[in-house]
Amino acid sequence: MKRIYLKDLETHLNHEITLQGFVDNIRDLQYVQFIILRDITEKVQITIEKNEENKKLNEIVSNLTNESTIKVVGRLLANSKVKLRGMELLPSEIIVTSKSLEELPFNFKNNDTALIDTKLDYRFIDLRNEKNTLIFKIQSCMIEAMRSYLYQENFIEINTPKIIGTASESGSEVFELKYFNQKAYLAQSPQFYKQMAMASGLEKIFEVAPAFRAENSNTNRHATEFTSFDLEFSYINSFEDVMSFEEDLLIAGFTAVKNQYGEQIKTLFNKEVIIPTKPFPRLKLNEVYQALADNYGYQIPKEDAGDLNSEAEKLTGKLALKKYGHEFIFITDYSFKKRPFYHMRKEGVPQGYDLIWRGCEITTGAQREHRYEILKKQAQEKGLDKDVKFYLEFFKYGCPPHGGFGLGVNRLTMLMLGITIKEAMFIFRGPNRLNP
Amino acid sequence: MKRIYLKDLETHLNHEITLQGFVDNIRDLQYVQFIILRDITEKVQITIEKNEENKKLNEIVSNLTNESTIKVVGRLLANSKVKLRGMELLPSEIIVTSKSLEELPFNFKNNDTALIDTKLDYRFIDLRNEKNTLIFKIQSCMIEAMRSYLYQENFIEINTPKIIGTASESGSEVFELKYFNQKAYLAQSPQFYKQMAMASGLEKIFEVAPAFRAENSNTNRHATEFTSFDLEFSYINSFEDVMSFEEDLLIAGFTAVKNQYGEQIKTLFNKEVIIPTKPFPRLKLNEVYQALADNYGYQIPKEDAGDLNSEAEKLTGKLALKKYGHEFIFITDYSFKKRPFYHMRKEGVPQGYDLIWRGCEITTGAQREHRYEILKKQAQEKGLDKDVKFYLEFFKYGCPPHGGFGLGVNRLTMLMLGITIKEAMFIFRGPNRLNP
Repeated sequence: MKRIYLKDLETHLNHEITLQGFVDNIRDLQYVQFIILRDITEKVQITIEKNEENKKLNEIVSNLTNESTIKVVGRLLANSKVKLRGMELLPSEIIVTSKSLEELPFNFKNNDTALIDTKLDYRFIDLRNEKNTLIFKIQSCMIEAMRSYLYQENFIEINTPKIIGTASESGSEVFELKYFNQKAYLAQSPQFYKQMAMASGLEKIFEVAPAFRAENSNTNRHATEFTSFDLEFSYINSFEDVMSFEEDLLIAGFTAVKNQYGEQIKTLFNKEVIIPTKPFPRLKLNEVYQALADNYGYQIPKEDAGDLNSEAEKLTGKLALKKYGHEFIFITDYSFKKRPFYHMRKEGVPQGYDLIWRGCEITTGAQREHRYEILKKQAQEKGLDKDVKFYLEFFKYGCPPHGGFGLGVNRLTMLMLGITIKEAMFIFRGPNRLNP
Repeated sequence: MKRIYLKDLETHLNHEITLQGFVDNIRDLQYVQFIILRDITEKVQITIEKNEENKKLNEIVSNLTNESTIKVVGRLLANSKVKLRGMELLPSEIIVTSKSLEELPFNFKNNDTALIDTKLDYRFIDLRNEKNTLIFKIQSCMIEAMRSYLYQENFIEINTPKIIGTASESGSEVFELKYFNQKAYLAQSPQFYKQMAMASGLEKIFEVAPAFRAENSNTNRHATEFTSFDLEFSYINSFEDVMSFEEDLLIAGFTAVKNQYGEQIKTLFNKEVIIPTKPFPRLKLNEVYQALADNYGYQIPKEDAGDLNSEAEKLTGKLALKKYGHEFIFITDYSFKKRPFYHMRKEGVPQGYDLIWRGCEITTGAQREHRYEILKKQAQEKGLDKDVKFYLEFFKYGCPPHGGFGLGVNRLTMLMLGITIKEAMFIFRGPNRLNP
């Protein structure tokens, strides 16, 4: 028998049906017992009169605890007196499929009162909160829509290794691993392998997978493990092609989320999903500096010259909204000193960008340097040529011009809903958080 | 300008177009030069007569090397004398976008002659082989179709942590990690977190992600890192629901692959994609033992009693084909001694199964034990209760009955195409293989 979702009950009125779910609430009164049953879609009331005929059921309900799971067989009837949806189930059978043994460590229904660490310790309970469940429905919907867009555009999904032989982009911030008798590392990004796929002639590839950063920083937007949405494609003319593609991809994702969850996001998170319009505004870094000075009297500190810091990102988001009425803004023309060696340069200027949304960087993208000699020189400049020797090999035997970007999935969700990174991850991992 | 794929050239005859791709082959003759251009879809001939007018082009082609990438502008003309597709491009411009600097370390077009280790060392070249490119198109197509089926069925995609605080299912075969000042481990499977999602009320979830096994075994079907397709769903009645769902999921995947790549698979791999019919045959382990004895005189060795070994799996695949005309077969009723503690038991019999395809196990699935007290007892029996304490907590506060399975993506591809696991992975990882 196909399971009946509680949201679909209207079509089953006056029928005998079987329902399953969590016991959301119990009221055991003098003459009647009420159970509110909850599944992922809705709630419904179960009403059991106290009488001789119901003796067995009454006993079961008396011993029932909140958050247990039950299976109920009964007849569904309309009843205008029932506040919840004007209907109730009159059960003939209740089976307790699992019993909640203890009192809950915090009230997940009103979890704003609990400490974040309590919520993370008991994440399996915390996720029962309606808002938290919605977060992962939204994230799943967003990824589905973006992936679907990529399939349409002939992208191939690949799975690159997370265990790697050399600390990839730099020696710092990499987790080290015992790999039989060798040392190995956890990949910070699939960058080198995405590019390998270009050298292999796969032309357009993507991957959605975990990425690992051994950063010892406890902020609201960093995690040591997160989900990275990465793609790379060949035969581009410039990084403008990459930016344009990212615009389309985000529009596809946002459209799906707004259609399916826009109203719920408004109700539960008080946030509007705004489908961005194309083209997103673009500013060169120097223009950003000028505008931040003019509009907010902000001066980039010396150590961040050639780059943006998080304060500057925040103001840039504000500027985008004020000047262009747009939540997104591309920043280009960073200093090559602040960019990875594999970004292509034109007259010394990296051919890449950061994308800022609501004042937070969500993407770094670029045209990559695909010509062996130049790439090798750029790696040497940063003192990395030995570390990345295996990677440089990829470019010795021909490689199409290409570019791509990486998108932090959890950061996207975080910004969409106005929550922290800890809430935007199914299980958060930080320097002091390795459980559950 | 939108890029033109070589497979779509027919619609561009008699037009000036721009093409991009790899130089598949060059013939530099006395009066004429030919380039065969290759992209991911097709090939085409570029013809350059040697004359005064073409002097610059002739020089470029003379210096060109195989496997370089080029951008060509020219007019596409029909020419019945051209063997390759009866057409040729007469170029007005050739730009070398990257030059292959060295002679290739092996002939990737006929890579059966190269050693597997050479091919893996130069995987970025090996993947240019037409068969290898097809492998990842197929894998991508299969996953897309299966994922799409899950979305339809209201599954939510989650991302579970790969860095975990305790060695998950057992102390052995787990990679150890330095996690700041602690020890951590790489997840062997998302099992515990999939089940956590059930306790959280997410009802139906899936994940496609890397899984890690520190097994020091060098076989044709093991890898230390592979892609695992995992799902879990709530409110099942028995593990029969899980098997039935897996049947539907595989049928969805196989149908997509057969429709899109069936012919190519036949041509390049000499393999037939057979869409399995429902229900797949099911045998209990004792029945398998009996049938293997009767049909092949095979007796399971003592140390494997209650289980199957790879020899027995092979014969069981043969048996399925002979007795049921089916490539798949479910085996149930294994000994609880050989199954994980979290499989539900009924009168001592694990409520789970292995799925064997073409004589190789591709899935273990089960109804899970969701009742805290029983689960704890089963963990104690295996001496694991302390190791899995954090996991047992998930079941204290109510958890719906549920089940699920994991599917090795690369193993699926391997069996579909009759290749080894090393070929079925974008980048293979084994005890002695950590590069590239």
